[in-house]
Amino acid sequence: MSIQFIEGGVTAAKGFKAASAAAGIKKSGKLDMALVYSETPCRSAGTFTTNRVQAAPVKWDRNQVYSGDPAQAIVINSGVANACTGEEGMGYCADTVEAAAKILGIPAASVLVASTGVIGRQLPMDKITGGIEMMAPKLGGTREDGASAATAIMTTDTTKKEVAVQFELDGTTVTIGGMCKGSGMIHPNMCTMLSFITTDICISKELLQRALSEDIKGTYNMISVDGDTSTNDSVLLLANGQAGNAEITDEADEGYALFCKALNMVNETFSKAIAGDGEGCTALFEVKVVGAKTLEDARILSKSIITSSLTKAAIFGHDANWGRIICAMGYSGGEFDPETVDLFFESKAGKLQIVKNGVATDYSEEEATKILSEPVVTAIADVKMGECEATAWGCDLTYDYVRINGDYRS
Amino acid sequence: MSIQFIEGGVTAAKGFKAASAAAGIKKSGKLDMALVYSETPCRSAGTFTTNRVQAAPVKWDRNQVYSGDPAQAIVINSGVANACTGEEGMGYCADTVEAAAKILGIPAASVLVASTGVIGRQLPMDKITGGIEMMAPKLGGTREDGASAATAIMTTDTTKKEVAVQFELDGTTVTIGGMCKGSGMIHPNMCTMLSFITTDICISKELLQRALSEDIKGTYNMISVDGDTSTNDSVLLLANGQAGNAEITDEADEGYALFCKALNMVNETFSKAIAGDGEGCTALFEVKVVGAKTLEDARILSKSIITSSLTKAAIFGHDANWGRIICAMGYSGGEFDPETVDLFFESKAGKLQIVKNGVATDYSEEEATKILSEPVVTAIADVKMGECEATAWGCDLTYDYVRINGDYRS
Repeated sequence: MSIQFIEGGVTAAKGFKAASAAAGIKKSGKLDMALVYSETPCRSAGTFTTNRVQAAPVKWDRNQVYSGDPAQAIVINSGVANACTGEEGMGYCADTVEAAAKILGIPAASVLVASTGVIGRQLPMDKITGGIEMMAPKLGGTREDGASAATAIMTTDTTKKEVAVQFELDGTTVTIGGMCKGSGMIHPNMCTMLSFITTDICISKELLQRALSEDIKGTYNMISVDGDTSTNDSVLLLANGQAGNAEITDEADEGYALFCKALNMVNETFSKAIAGDGEGCTALFEVKVVGAKTLEDARILSKSIITSSLTKAAIFGHDANWGRIICAMGYSGGEFDPETVDLFFESKAGKLQIVKNGVATDYSEEEATKILSEPVVTAIADVKMGECEATAWGCDLTYDYVRINGDYRS
Repeated sequence: MSIQFIEGGVTAAKGFKAASAAAGIKKSGKLDMALVYSETPCRSAGTFTTNRVQAAPVKWDRNQVYSGDPAQAIVINSGVANACTGEEGMGYCADTVEAAAKILGIPAASVLVASTGVIGRQLPMDKITGGIEMMAPKLGGTREDGASAATAIMTTDTTKKEVAVQFELDGTTVTIGGMCKGSGMIHPNMCTMLSFITTDICISKELLQRALSEDIKGTYNMISVDGDTSTNDSVLLLANGQAGNAEITDEADEGYALFCKALNMVNETFSKAIAGDGEGCTALFEVKVVGAKTLEDARILSKSIITSSLTKAAIFGHDANWGRIICAMGYSGGEFDPETVDLFFESKAGKLQIVKNGVATDYSEEEATKILSEPVVTAIADVKMGECEATAWGCDLTYDYVRINGDYRS
């Protein structure tokens, strides 16, 4: 029952193809469109931003997912965000979907859309249509096809983000693969996290959605780059059933548990990749809270730490500033006793206890700095109140974050 | 019934004296202690950080205020934060109070304490005691005595913060004066907002506390420099009754309304001063939300905007990035409809409508940049749902914020 990471991305699962195009939406001439396609109709699941302001593609995809209609393609552009919330934005979605449906020869009701990039610019429909026309004949299921799609959805991400996992079920091989992009912007606008996951497992739509909805609570919802919840954040999950396993329809089915575990490996990988590639950041900052009374407390406490600007700046400075961490726990609302908390820093360079029962240990600042100078830094807070734990992922706050987001649009 | 700003600070009200000292707690040799003293016993009121982790002086002062005992002096040091939460920290408070009571010849139960500065260092009790001995004979009620105390409580504040107001009541003159310090640090530690207000009004202790507790909701609680709620934040208000007005004991008394209004002028001035002197900032960023359904909605929406890192970085870049503002309103939890919101930017350089009914107007980027290049910038969001409004104050996010908080302790 082991689950393996394998080389691959959004085309790793059976029957999934992808393509990319430089459709001329980005002024730089870089890849700016991607198309994900399944040979056969899929069950779709999705989770979306909780921001009251929701970009048109978010509304569109939510409708598609909730409708129960099969899904078969996702059209993504990374040039213009289509963050308009009104009729105009929905019109662009409809036009994009209609063009893709016609070119691909599939029902319009089976096409999902996603956008990220500049706001305040109109979606150039001629270029979008042109891009779809370019991509349709190029759709392929190779490693390279997936990689080029993952590249095409990047904005200011510094690396493309792909992952795939495999496991055995009913004597068949099930694969989950995906690609995502992090909070980056090519012009000042709203940051956007997009994640596209494909799988060939055969599972009921209800359980597909439940698995995703549960899993994001401990993965995407536990990351923060700057505390700003975007209007475009979306995770889409398509399952085409081509693995050939007996359909999973019962939560008690051990195949469901296995799928959830595998899905978690994909989403946790992406969450860390997005946090570690946060705008301007130099380090992935992981925070584990252990010994919490409830899972909710552990999540609240750990997320408060990775969101604290003061703590993030200290991580940038390789400074074991435990006071800021305890402070961020204090205002989080999560339950803990400052006088019993233990705090550790850990990285490839070692592990060091900084605080014992709320009081600083006699630790070496030099050793602490060494540990904090690694590209992946973990803080562990043991609150000694129970058995629950959670991990949150963030990044440091740097001059480059200010530069990227403060520079005047030119 | 008009209330006037007058020149002055913590010694402006009758019977209040202050002194300062360079007690050698700050390595720089700068002023690092202040003493505020009333000739006669005062009624005290206070509001304190809601952080679960509370520094010893916060616990000490809360006990004093709640006890109902008269208060007569406040001993403040700006060198070491005494952020310890346990018995050790409380021991330092007790030692400080005992020393001050003995030197000043007043009951220990009437002495309040406040600390800000480096954490993780022991409070040097010999220097604290030495400082009190230096200050006691120097206590004076002049303009300069107040100013030197306001200077002594600064950490990385770039300007001292004082204000005083006066109004007539029952044919007598009532004065409220005060001093405060903002979020600054001389070493990486927890930031601290401290505010000390003195008045000669005669008012019941209950109404004194009620006036303060109500007022902070619209003043100090509406500011943010970096979203981190300190463990030391305190506002202390002392009233010695020397103005000679008939004691205010009824909330319906018009003198109470007048006092509340005057207190608000003091606290709002301080709130803007603290936000406008936020670490590394170049601009005071004021956000007014008008037309909200409830006061609570207006406060949630305006505070979310001034707390958004992305918006703060845009203000630093003089960038009219309305998308980030609407986005921050969206995730705040406050009620509004993104499709009916109007948004304006205003400063000394003019006023410009950026968004009308959720859609960008055809505004001039050049004019917007001009308006946003002033040291005080206001954004006004009209959500057109009701009659309630609120204002929040923040500052821009700059390279210097990262430098101040990211530089390794050296």
